[in-house]
Amino acid sequence: MTLQDARTPESVSDNGEKPKIGWHKGYVSGSRPDLQVPVRRVHLTNGKDVTLYDTSGPYTDPNIDTDVRRGLAPLRENWIIARGDTEEYAGRPLRPEDDGIKHTSPRGGLKNLDAVFPGRPRQPRRGRDGAAVTQLAYARRGEITAEMEYVALRENVTPEFVRDEIAAGRAVLPANINHPEIEPMIIGKNFLVKVNANIGNSAVTSSIEEEVEKMTWATRWGADTVMDLSTGRNIHTTREWVLRNSPVPIGTVPLYQALEKVDGKAEELTWEIYKDTVIEQAEQGVDYMTVHAGVLLRYVPLTARRKTGIVSRGGSIMAAWCLAHHKESFLYTHFEELCEILAAYDVTYSLGDGLRPGSIADANDEAQFAELRTLGELNTIAKRHGVQTMIEGPGHVPMHKIKENIDLQQEICEEAPFYTLGPLTTDIAPAYDHITSGIGAAMIAWWGTAMLCYVTPKEHLGLPDRDDVKTGVITYKIAAHAADLAKGHPGAQEWDDALSDARFEFRWEDQFNLALDPDTARAFHDETLPAEPAKTAHFCSMCGPKFCSMKISQDIRREHGGDLAVDPEAGMAEKSREFAEAGNRVYLPIAD
Amino acid sequence: MTLQDARTPESVSDNGEKPKIGWHKGYVSGSRPDLQVPVRRVHLTNGKDVTLYDTSGPYTDPNIDTDVRRGLAPLRENWIIARGDTEEYAGRPLRPEDDGIKHTSPRGGLKNLDAVFPGRPRQPRRGRDGAAVTQLAYARRGEITAEMEYVALRENVTPEFVRDEIAAGRAVLPANINHPEIEPMIIGKNFLVKVNANIGNSAVTSSIEEEVEKMTWATRWGADTVMDLSTGRNIHTTREWVLRNSPVPIGTVPLYQALEKVDGKAEELTWEIYKDTVIEQAEQGVDYMTVHAGVLLRYVPLTARRKTGIVSRGGSIMAAWCLAHHKESFLYTHFEELCEILAAYDVTYSLGDGLRPGSIADANDEAQFAELRTLGELNTIAKRHGVQTMIEGPGHVPMHKIKENIDLQQEICEEAPFYTLGPLTTDIAPAYDHITSGIGAAMIAWWGTAMLCYVTPKEHLGLPDRDDVKTGVITYKIAAHAADLAKGHPGAQEWDDALSDARFEFRWEDQFNLALDPDTARAFHDETLPAEPAKTAHFCSMCGPKFCSMKISQDIRREHGGDLAVDPEAGMAEKSREFAEAGNRVYLPIAD
Repeated sequence: MTLQDARTPESVSDNGEKPKIGWHKGYVSGSRPDLQVPVRRVHLTNGKDVTLYDTSGPYTDPNIDTDVRRGLAPLRENWIIARGDTEEYAGRPLRPEDDGIKHTSPRGGLKNLDAVFPGRPRQPRRGRDGAAVTQLAYARRGEITAEMEYVALRENVTPEFVRDEIAAGRAVLPANINHPEIEPMIIGKNFLVKVNANIGNSAVTSSIEEEVEKMTWATRWGADTVMDLSTGRNIHTTREWVLRNSPVPIGTVPLYQALEKVDGKAEELTWEIYKDTVIEQAEQGVDYMTVHAGVLLRYVPLTARRKTGIVSRGGSIMAAWCLAHHKESFLYTHFEELCEILAAYDVTYSLGDGLRPGSIADANDEAQFAELRTLGELNTIAKRHGVQTMIEGPGHVPMHKIKENIDLQQEICEEAPFYTLGPLTTDIAPAYDHITSGIGAAMIAWWGTAMLCYVTPKEHLGLPDRDDVKTGVITYKIAAHAADLAKGHPGAQEWDDALSDARFEFRWEDQFNLALDPDTARAFHDETLPAEPAKTAHFCSMCGPKFCSMKISQDIRREHGGDLAVDPEAGMAEKSREFAEAGNRVYLPIAD
Repeated sequence: MTLQDARTPESVSDNGEKPKIGWHKGYVSGSRPDLQVPVRRVHLTNGKDVTLYDTSGPYTDPNIDTDVRRGLAPLRENWIIARGDTEEYAGRPLRPEDDGIKHTSPRGGLKNLDAVFPGRPRQPRRGRDGAAVTQLAYARRGEITAEMEYVALRENVTPEFVRDEIAAGRAVLPANINHPEIEPMIIGKNFLVKVNANIGNSAVTSSIEEEVEKMTWATRWGADTVMDLSTGRNIHTTREWVLRNSPVPIGTVPLYQALEKVDGKAEELTWEIYKDTVIEQAEQGVDYMTVHAGVLLRYVPLTARRKTGIVSRGGSIMAAWCLAHHKESFLYTHFEELCEILAAYDVTYSLGDGLRPGSIADANDEAQFAELRTLGELNTIAKRHGVQTMIEGPGHVPMHKIKENIDLQQEICEEAPFYTLGPLTTDIAPAYDHITSGIGAAMIAWWGTAMLCYVTPKEHLGLPDRDDVKTGVITYKIAAHAADLAKGHPGAQEWDDALSDARFEFRWEDQFNLALDPDTARAFHDETLPAEPAKTAHFCSMCGPKFCSMKISQDIRREHGGDLAVDPEAGMAEKSREFAEAGNRVYLPIAD
């Protein structure tokens, strides 16, 4: 394993953003030249380096010339081809309604699309002869794929461990064979806790450009995956731009697009339209799909007396369909067929919790747990087909009901990765739901959630902008890392230790550069003590030079350190004499 | 119990701030005319009212003419006098060094003080003949004071319960007899979880006016107590302004001022200077004082090999003193004398955790727990003197070590109220430590912490400004309320339920008015959908009109509600027919 360093980037992306100062892009090399795992290397002023997990993709590597109109390089293409179990094919023809514009243009053409992705032409790929070309299938056969080795280097574990966790269904490695641009990552409770950021335009607002920028922005701050939840126009084209430029796995809810194709009339949805949409998205390269197949006809009445009914969009669409037809959900009745499709592209299931609670009052109720039991059944079926599967979770849950919730999920779903939204631990703080949910997220991740879906300050109120996306990601990185610490994840505490060392030694620049958000940390410090010398001063603005406890504590250590711990009483007397002889200097000069 | 409402305030304070719209100040009357407990009454558009706990003081009552130069009315004065166990006396003469200016003015006068408080002249009061005039002493004698009744009304429990909790030492009611302006409140694990906000100038920055404004601002957003941690000039006068204008108990760390009096030279501190400072502050009306009496000489070496040594200012000052003199801490050796002083004013102890961990690496270590055992001994001594006592807690603690920490505190300190800073669950996010600590705060409060000391985004970086104070308070109100919910506190969930009902029924204005921060919630909503009609629209900007799950869910309830829960299968068939007959209208018109 060797470490190659990129130089400090001068500019890192096409949106004109300055890179974070003080850390450099590095790579850890695997067993083959094309296996280069990116890391963030923070260079400390004491000459030491701290190596951190990096999700920001090629955008932060100054040696790579990125262009959002061209897309990222297909990192995994050769690995996929070399496995020899897939084939290129013509693919499903694009249709205007894929972009939600069937009434404004003639059928069968792309004339009226607002912004077609201009990058290199590509044909979709699928498993030959209906074979499951999934990481799960490979793992079960005992194979260690390049993706698994990549992930092992990222997580600092052995490739065998990665393989075994995937084979057991305890972890997923979402990696559609049509999304070769991704840097592989893994989601499972025995790995670092991951964070997903949602983006997506709606009928009301936002553009393609904004969504692509939100994606690169979210990954720069640490998002491990991104879900594109677009529901408005240009839904297909937006997704194409996002996929071709994304270094992280992309998730979607195909039901949203299917509903657009029937003008938002849930009762007009059919299995055929849904299936066609899934294939459309699988060919594009969507890595995981939320499927609300657990919303059964008989569960809908269980929600009638809830305080907030059904709050999942997918759940409410399927509930409306079931009621309109008085039939069982087509997602449930066609589930095995869906498994076959997903297996042919290695699309990972994210079994949606359509009946998740939308308020404290509805948490852990009959509707929620009835659906969970069905998700457990579907998990077993998906695994049988070799499809990687994770399970989505709540929602709004007060703290004392969180553990029951995840324990039940782990039991019913045989430890399949839990992918939770929050949970929000109270309903009373709209505009601060990143915090109400960050509390629940940290706890549920400690108890085993593998990936956290972020919540932004705009939750319940509006669509997140750039600042909201950043706040949401940072909040959830905190929750995830707090959980990594609590789980005793190997190496997790090194980051905290490095920052605390810097703090104790007044290495302000190192403190900033090690922070989850160096820019804001630096700005806050400078508000009170803006001068450059203050960044090396042996005190800070909270206490001033005379009162600084860290300073006093350092002096104590210098005067009375180390050996005291061995024999306190003897040491004390000796050190006390030394202290007096040194002139009772409790506060050394600032310049010291 | 009757409810009197103040009208919607047009202006609420002297700093020109607009009040929150949509809630009105009300009062719950007790058994006597001068016992009026303030509440926040939120008037909903459906004609219902929600009554919430209110900490904002007379500033939000338009019928009360407040003036920070005059101070608040001495609400409790008659109650204190009527008890007949206290006396007024001349009090300790003020000295220039009380304001940290002994080198710049002649001794014995107040000539050079920057800004003397101009309010009504007052003489200090103390217990007659050294009697303990504390709520604890009264409670033990079986008395129910006016303060206890006031608190019972606030917390919706019986006065007897309040008395018993105080008598058992499980709760404190901090109420210095020289601070008659406060609206009594209680701190104990069987009551609502409380939040403290720190203010205070330092040698580097900020003024008296700013500190008074921070205090009123913090209480407006929900701070239950405020600690004045000033360390710079005008320390006495700043405190006078804060006390005379504060509707909530004020806490301090007398050691900070004492150290100012010896020019910051810890080794020059003496019991006499400290004692004099405590009396000075007790006469002013400080309600609780942090005393780091558990930092013993023999514990200091235990910190020598820590990652971040001693991070408590008080702890490091006392550690330096102990080392310089090679003697036991004067706070420890004079503790019984200190108890007698505090008992004569009803100042509550907040026994400081001078050796609290300042990093994840140092959590729950030998130094911390050694000090905790000493605090347990001191708690017993304080109680013997009739002094109300709470215990301060960490600091930086990863999630998996939080429960051990509080369980030990509760055991060692016989359930004395735990008053915790955070704890911060990771060190890696300076600029977001309100969140790293909000996570730990919610958890430790669920497990029994009675009061949470807030942390602002500026923690570790600089002094909080107005926005930081608000963010810190709101974050901690979330943590406190999440804990109230998890503890099953009676009535806590009513607030969540009211907000969730408003959300489900698209009563946007009610949702805003019930929010912890109505202003920000409203502003976030308006960013995406600014038009006034959007506030009554049956959808919101996240999904647009067609996709709104709440809308679909409402329709389902309307079409298939209630009776379905009784007999799902039969009901479904019936309702499905009705659904078809009604024209398969899944999405009712927006105007509906």
